[in-house]
Amino acid sequence: MKQPWWQGRVARPSEVYAQRARARQTQLTKPAGSLGQLEALAVQLAAMQASDRPQAERVTIAIFAADHGVVAEGVSAYPQAVTGQMLGNFATGGAAISVLADSLNAELQLHALGLAMPVADMPGVRHWQLAPGTANLRRQAAMTAEQCEQAMAVGREVVMQAAGRGCEVFIGGEMGIGNTTAACALACALLQLPASALVGPGTGLDAAGVAHKAQVIDQAVALHRPACATAFDWLCHLGGLELAALVGAYVSAAQLALPVLIDGYIASAAALCAARLNPASRDWWLFSHRGAEPGHAALLAAMQAEPMLQLGLRLGEGSGAALAVPLLRHACLLHNSMASFAAAGVDRRADDAHA
Amino acid sequence: MKQPWWQGRVARPSEVYAQRARARQTQLTKPAGSLGQLEALAVQLAAMQASDRPQAERVTIAIFAADHGVVAEGVSAYPQAVTGQMLGNFATGGAAISVLADSLNAELQLHALGLAMPVADMPGVRHWQLAPGTANLRRQAAMTAEQCEQAMAVGREVVMQAAGRGCEVFIGGEMGIGNTTAACALACALLQLPASALVGPGTGLDAAGVAHKAQVIDQAVALHRPACATAFDWLCHLGGLELAALVGAYVSAAQLALPVLIDGYIASAAALCAARLNPASRDWWLFSHRGAEPGHAALLAAMQAEPMLQLGLRLGEGSGAALAVPLLRHACLLHNSMASFAAAGVDRRADDAHA
Repeated sequence: MKQPWWQGRVARPSEVYAQRARARQTQLTKPAGSLGQLEALAVQLAAMQASDRPQAERVTIAIFAADHGVVAEGVSAYPQAVTGQMLGNFATGGAAISVLADSLNAELQLHALGLAMPVADMPGVRHWQLAPGTANLRRQAAMTAEQCEQAMAVGREVVMQAAGRGCEVFIGGEMGIGNTTAACALACALLQLPASALVGPGTGLDAAGVAHKAQVIDQAVALHRPACATAFDWLCHLGGLELAALVGAYVSAAQLALPVLIDGYIASAAALCAARLNPASRDWWLFSHRGAEPGHAALLAAMQAEPMLQLGLRLGEGSGAALAVPLLRHACLLHNSMASFAAAGVDRRADDAHA
Repeated sequence: MKQPWWQGRVARPSEVYAQRARARQTQLTKPAGSLGQLEALAVQLAAMQASDRPQAERVTIAIFAADHGVVAEGVSAYPQAVTGQMLGNFATGGAAISVLADSLNAELQLHALGLAMPVADMPGVRHWQLAPGTANLRRQAAMTAEQCEQAMAVGREVVMQAAGRGCEVFIGGEMGIGNTTAACALACALLQLPASALVGPGTGLDAAGVAHKAQVIDQAVALHRPACATAFDWLCHLGGLELAALVGAYVSAAQLALPVLIDGYIASAAALCAARLNPASRDWWLFSHRGAEPGHAALLAAMQAEPMLQLGLRLGEGSGAALAVPLLRHACLLHNSMASFAAAGVDRRADDAHA
């Protein structure tokens, strides 16, 4: 059997350029290390881009939207129609991510992978409609293997086209009523944790709602365990079309040496799945924020991720990643534009005189 | 005796506009609270500006630079000449804050309050030269009451002029070799804590250097305690000219209803002193970041401050506040530009239908 594309080779970021960037940081007119995490970000991006001048100006934000059969179990505070309605809101500029993308001068792409109630007339939305949403993961596999591969291929195609147009940083966002349940179930399966360790209110469940959601997730993981041996199996059985698209996008970006800025809880569940499919992919991801959903911290810890922001966000849509873009841009700008001690005629510390 | 200007009246931010802003946040197309801290920031700024459309576009960054006699005690890793050299680097665009101010399209002002080695020819720097730096606070009062008042008046004048030009958010930054020692001593005195609880490496002391610095600070606080009854007394005895300018700027901004974005450790020590001089001032300050200097967390806690960023910064210059400006701007932009549920035709959650 042919090796699936997502197991294909991922290179390492350039250690040569990482060292050059670290050396440059010590020459800039500031105490060594005083820009904290921004110095590490500049070094990482220099290594990924194999460049002495890392850049995060050309940003593509691709939103993948899909519906989830598991909403039949009463796991969301919002009606399912909202998935399509919000996609329309993204397109007309009224959603958070629309406002942020415009402000950042970032390209915003909208991909409908499978809506339960397809909305025909939404300019700016690409309709893939691989299925009318997923099946109810508490009763059966959310997706067939074929559907899952198709959704992953959409993520890959989107990333390949972005890379071809000169994208410097890729952000994947998601929209899908019910998708914190799917993401949490996937995370529980991959981390081998009970739902109680990872479940949260999503868009706004009360305590009873969260307890019910945890029960649905635990039952689903138990139901599918006999059929699932690999991360791909779990993605098919518990994931969603937009989650699979993110997984495909994250692996594909790594294969193309395109840096990724990972968004919040749902995106991090997809990233963990992608890291299980192709562990070297992880080297190409930067993490934007630690959100309010309780399970997010566990997902980040499993990937040794140290995100830039912690603002209590729980919106999704790629919004947390978008909010981190100015930090990434400033990390690059400081790295590229600050003066050196020598050029500015500023004395170094006494014990650095010979360095 | 006439009441000093810094005890003059400070109004409260508008509760009417805070309520209007909170109401607007519930109408925007996102789950309630899902933008976390950004929602609170938009509400705070709306209340401060008494506006339905809070703005953080017009930003003034004023850097106050001065030297410190306490460097004679060997408390800094850098030679004293660096204060003036870095001021020149700010002016010619090579420093971190120069790069950030340019990127943010913010006004950058440079004020030399008292250099040990005055540099004559620095275009763009305003020379106040109130003294050739402070006296050595381990041996005598750092400033006379008159010098301290003069430095506070500089901060006030800078803020009044910025407010007059339509500044929407004011940032005060500082530069001064040795000023983490002065700031830490002031914080120890105001918080009644030993230096060991607050001292840190500053720009880069090793463990022995930090222990020595703590000893200098404890000795200085003990030396000056008999003469110090008020926060103003402590500021004169342990502070610095740039610290006093920041104190004056922070109180004056509050009196003028001008929002302030507080930078890092030094700025936070000045803010605590300002809050002791005029407690109502605190309502007009937003806090940008929690830095790497160990005492910063204690200063923030004493002011019930929840900063936006935690990136391990320890540079000063106003750089942490500048890095938080895009978050503040995005908080405003989301508040002002997102669509409402009604306008976008997006369903609300079932239990909000009657809200």
